[in-house]
Amino acid sequence: MKLKPLNDRVLVKRLEGEEVTKGGIIIPDSAKEKPMKGEVIAVGPGKVGDDGTRTKVAVEAGDKVLFNKYAGTEMKVDGEEFLVMREDDILAIIEE
Amino acid sequence: MKLKPLNDRVLVKRLEGEEVTKGGIIIPDSAKEKPMKGEVIAVGPGKVGDDGTRTKVAVEAGDKVLFNKYAGTEMKVDGEEFLVMREDDILAIIEE
Amino acid sequence: MKLKPLNDRVLVKRLEGEEVTKGGIIIPDSAKEKPMKGEVIAVGPGKVGDDGTRTKVAVEAGDKVLFNKYAGTEMKVDGEEFLVMREDDILAIIEE
Amino acid sequence: MKLKPLNDRVLVKRLEGEEVTKGGIIIPDSAKEKPMKGEVIAVGPGKVGDDGTRTKVAVEAGDKVLFNKYAGTEMKVDGEEFLVMREDDILAIIEE
Amino acid sequence: MKLKPLNDRVLVKRLEGEEVTKGGIIIPDSAKEKPMKGEVIAVGPGKVGDDGTRTKVAVEAGDKVLFNKYAGTEMKVDGEEFLVMREDDILAIIEE
Amino acid sequence: MKLKPLNDRVLVKRLEGEEVTKGGIIIPDSAKEKPMKGEVIAVGPGKVGDDGTRTKVAVEAGDKVLFNKYAGTEMKVDGEEFLVMREDDILAIIEE
Amino acid sequence: MKLKPLNDRVLVKRLEGEEVTKGGIIIPDSAKEKPMKGEVIAVGPGKVGDDGTRTKVAVEAGDKVLFNKYAGTEMKVDGEEFLVMREDDILAIIEE
Repeated sequence: MKLKPLNDRVLVKRLEGEEVTKGGIIIPDSAKEKPMKGEVIAVGPGKVGDDGTRTKVAVEAGDKVLFNKYAGTEMKVDGEEFLVMREDDILAIIEE
Repeated sequence: MKLKPLNDRVLVKRLEGEEVTKGGIIIPDSAKEKPMKGEVIAVGPGKVGDDGTRTKVAVEAGDKVLFNKYAGTEMKVDGEEFLVMREDDILAIIEE
Repeated sequence: MKLKPLNDRVLVKRLEGEEVTKGGIIIPDSAKEKPMKGEVIAVGPGKVGDDGTRTKVAVEAGDKVLFNKYAGTEMKVDGEEFLVMREDDILAIIEE
Repeated sequence: MKLKPLNDRVLVKRLEGEEVTKGGIIIPDSAKEKPMKGEVIAVGPGKVGDDGTRTKVAVEAGDKVLFNKYAGTEMKVDGEEFLVMREDDILAIIEE
Repeated sequence: MKLKPLNDRVLVKRLEGEEVTKGGIIIPDSAKEKPMKGEVIAVGPGKVGDDGTRTKVAVEAGDKVLFNKYAGTEMKVDGEEFLVMREDDILAIIEE
Repeated sequence: MKLKPLNDRVLVKRLEGEEVTKGGIIIPDSAKEKPMKGEVIAVGPGKVGDDGTRTKVAVEAGDKVLFNKYAGTEMKVDGEEFLVMREDDILAIIEE
Repeated sequence: MKLKPLNDRVLVKRLEGEEVTKGGIIIPDSAKEKPMKGEVIAVGPGKVGDDGTRTKVAVEAGDKVLFNKYAGTEMKVDGEEFLVMREDDILAIIEE
């Protein structure tokens, strides 16, 4: 079973509980709005502007991303947590 | 009797009470905003932009979709529940 | 006497108190926002976009429509209730 | 002395206290937002869009119109009440 | 010393305390939002749209105008009251 | 050290405490929102519209300007107060 | 490990605790909204407008910038604080 996000929506698998020791991203507990780490599973075809122009989503399946903690809608498929969020909730791509 | 949604509105038949055991989507009870599963029954011709461009709705009749729980307006036809919502309330298409 | 709605406004005659027994639309009492049934009496020439493009209203006189309960402004002509609402308050056209 | 409304503004003379007996519009007291009847005295040249396009106002001097009760700014010229409102506050033209 | 308003701003000299006896505009005390009378002293070059188009301000120096009472920012030059407001706060030009 | 404002931002040096006796601007204490006098030190290259058009800022370095009291973000360089504000917070240019 | 910001987002390394004695920027404690000093580490490819035009971000890696204190989302990489903010939260580039 596959989920195909609509328009500028992105399906993300949350990566949590990873202990990071060297060069990793550690989200401070005291941060006002903590970003989360995840992997992009599927992306929509992009947002459509007023004049009908569709703008490709800026991430693609396989990208590791940082996103705002309260972004998106949660769901579970086969016991794994997924989130459907808007492209705009993604802060950055993690390149390793 | 048929309902023909206007512009970017979509008529959805809610699919509820389905027990899903393998590969299915289980919506966690604790989720802030639970998505619902439904089947698209009819779609409007799409939203019209400022310059008169009409953008086709990104789902079509027969699509299984996930949508936000509080989306749309409820109604009943012949005892079945329907929802009229905006395309933007649909999160993803479920491909099986 | 006739009313000619402006721009994207639509004049609707509310159809209420109709008992529906077969294939009809029954609005559940518990629905958060109940849609109402009505007949379109007159439509405006459509909304004008930023670049001067006028977009024709998506319903026409004679259409049976569903609209949000709290939509529009009420008035009475010859004892019949009318509503002037925006096209965007109309959810769907009922085709029989 | 004449008033020339700016852009999409419309100068309206309120018509009130007219008893209507046949085919007239009676505004129900219980209506949430009662429309008022008036006559258009003068109109502005129309709103200007982002790209400089000016869209002609959809009513003209002499039109009888219905408008929202709380629309516009009141003023008095020679003892008569006038209102300066935006075109968008006008619901419909009354054709007799 | 001269003030040159920016973009769609307009410099207005408030005309108050003028007793008006014939054909004049009398603002009712009970009006929700009383318009004020003023004279345009200087106008900006106009607002710039998203595509860089500048739209000329619809009033010019010397125009007598009506504007909303709470519009603009007050200042005093040589004991006279001035207001800097946006073109959109001006309701109508008074033609005599 | 120099500050180069971004996009439609403007760096302004506040001029305060100047006693003005003839033809000067005196801001009334009772004004709801008092404008301040300042000198433009640097301007950004201008705002970028949806279609990529950059609109030049309407003031330039050396201009004396009036701006809203609560506009912008304060900072100090070498003991002098500066403000970084948006072009839109500037009301008018003072020409002497 | 590298972070690649999305669209109009910018990755900034906060520069704090620097005592500035000559020509430096001292943020007054009493300022309503204190700007912070930082260094741009990476920038997104720019925001996409309604018509698909992408506008290059106005800062680049290596720029020293001032930004609003409450801007962006905090994170830590290898013990250093980073912020992901929108280009629009950056007030000015510091040129030395």
